[in-house]
Amino acid sequence: MIRYQILIEYVGTNFKGWQVQKKGITVQGLLQQEISKILKEKIKVYGSGRTDAGVHAIQQSAHFDTLNEIKDIKKFFNSLNFFINPYQVSLLKLIKKNSNFHARFSAKKRLYKYVIINRTSMPVIEKRRSWHVRKDLDIQLMKKGAQKLLGKKDFSTFRASSCNAKSPIRTMEKATVSSKNNKIIIKFQSQSFLQQQVRSMVGCLKYLGEKKWTLSQFTKVIKSKNRKLCAPPAPAEGLFLERVFY
Amino acid sequence: MIRYQILIEYVGTNFKGWQVQKKGITVQGLLQQEISKILKEKIKVYGSGRTDAGVHAIQQSAHFDTLNEIKDIKKFFNSLNFFINPYQVSLLKLIKKNSNFHARFSAKKRLYKYVIINRTSMPVIEKRRSWHVRKDLDIQLMKKGAQKLLGKKDFSTFRASSCNAKSPIRTMEKATVSSKNNKIIIKFQSQSFLQQQVRSMVGCLKYLGEKKWTLSQFTKVIKSKNRKLCAPPAPAEGLFLERVFY
Repeated sequence: MIRYQILIEYVGTNFKGWQVQKKGITVQGLLQQEISKILKEKIKVYGSGRTDAGVHAIQQSAHFDTLNEIKDIKKFFNSLNFFINPYQVSLLKLIKKNSNFHARFSAKKRLYKYVIINRTSMPVIEKRRSWHVRKDLDIQLMKKGAQKLLGKKDFSTFRASSCNAKSPIRTMEKATVSSKNNKIIIKFQSQSFLQQQVRSMVGCLKYLGEKKWTLSQFTKVIKSKNRKLCAPPAPAEGLFLERVFY
Repeated sequence: MIRYQILIEYVGTNFKGWQVQKKGITVQGLLQQEISKILKEKIKVYGSGRTDAGVHAIQQSAHFDTLNEIKDIKKFFNSLNFFINPYQVSLLKLIKKNSNFHARFSAKKRLYKYVIINRTSMPVIEKRRSWHVRKDLDIQLMKKGAQKLLGKKDFSTFRASSCNAKSPIRTMEKATVSSKNNKIIIKFQSQSFLQQQVRSMVGCLKYLGEKKWTLSQFTKVIKSKNRKLCAPPAPAEGLFLERVFY
């Protein structure tokens, strides 16, 4: 068996997320189907993690095993892109790996980006690539809130009820909020994330920015470890998996 | 007559450009039609300048005159957006102006942005919002080339044959090239531009980046004032009118 890592970009809009589902088209499903056709063997693709329906990836990482080495890399690359590009998925890189490499378990950090367009009018250039928030957000307050999310803690507040991770403890290495011309960019980096954690944290930062919560209320919500106190999660369409580090 | 300035964002993909044409839908045409309907009088919209078919605007500026003051600004704003948003046009601002304000003639500077995705694989997140250039571009060389475009000079090389400006002399105040993760951003600022000037300059910078031309050949092309020596203009889909300054 030969193992290959692939890096892929995709627009999440038309997918039922990364992971194969009983119904609907998924990125993993599309890749498995098209790689299997090209290599003429049944291929299983393992992602660095799932992304929800509607979430985009600037650079998702995955791996697959094949019986034979891919001799003509360029041909494989072009063939796969020919079939997946119409679905708004693009293969960026194909890298031969040792069998101890695992797209999910070898990942050291994951970086997510969330985009908010904060103005009255609907965004058209970034439609379906951002969350349109009409109410004026206080960026300085959101920056302070992001600071409170840093470090090792129990993130139960931000965990979907369907999350099956063993522990709600995670270590947030990076949590930044920046803003330019009504576009707010929020970035989170951690070794791994709980299900819907980023969208839940962004939802709470938005409540803070709207002054629906004070900073001390925001901190209490984090410390509560109570999912019921979490703000509604931010919509999927503003979320991008930016990079997976190994 | 009361004069209003409007700021608008649009995705150029589905338009035959800004200016009203005999055939096909244009941004100016759409705005005139919808504003006329709302105000119940024949409205003419004057833009800061034309954008070609396929060119986007982060912030285009225009003005129109109406017989009566718009009493309910919020209602006008929401009504217009209701009709134009489905066409990927968004009204950002409506500002009452004196009759000596003119969207085109009062403009002091125009800022354009051009986006190149420089990699093998097709971009999907920025599809139709960028120029996909496969060949590796030398950014340092392009930065040097951009410097050569600064200042007051005859830009005849970069002028479309259909351009009807009186003089080919322009003063380039800003010409920058920056790059991050295979995304190259080129910005130009000038009081005004000749027809297809930005796309022609970007086309030449791409020739330079590809090392099809040396820096001295690039400089000769500028100085030649000969349109025939210009590289093919960069495609419209990577170009954004970023801002008009007054």
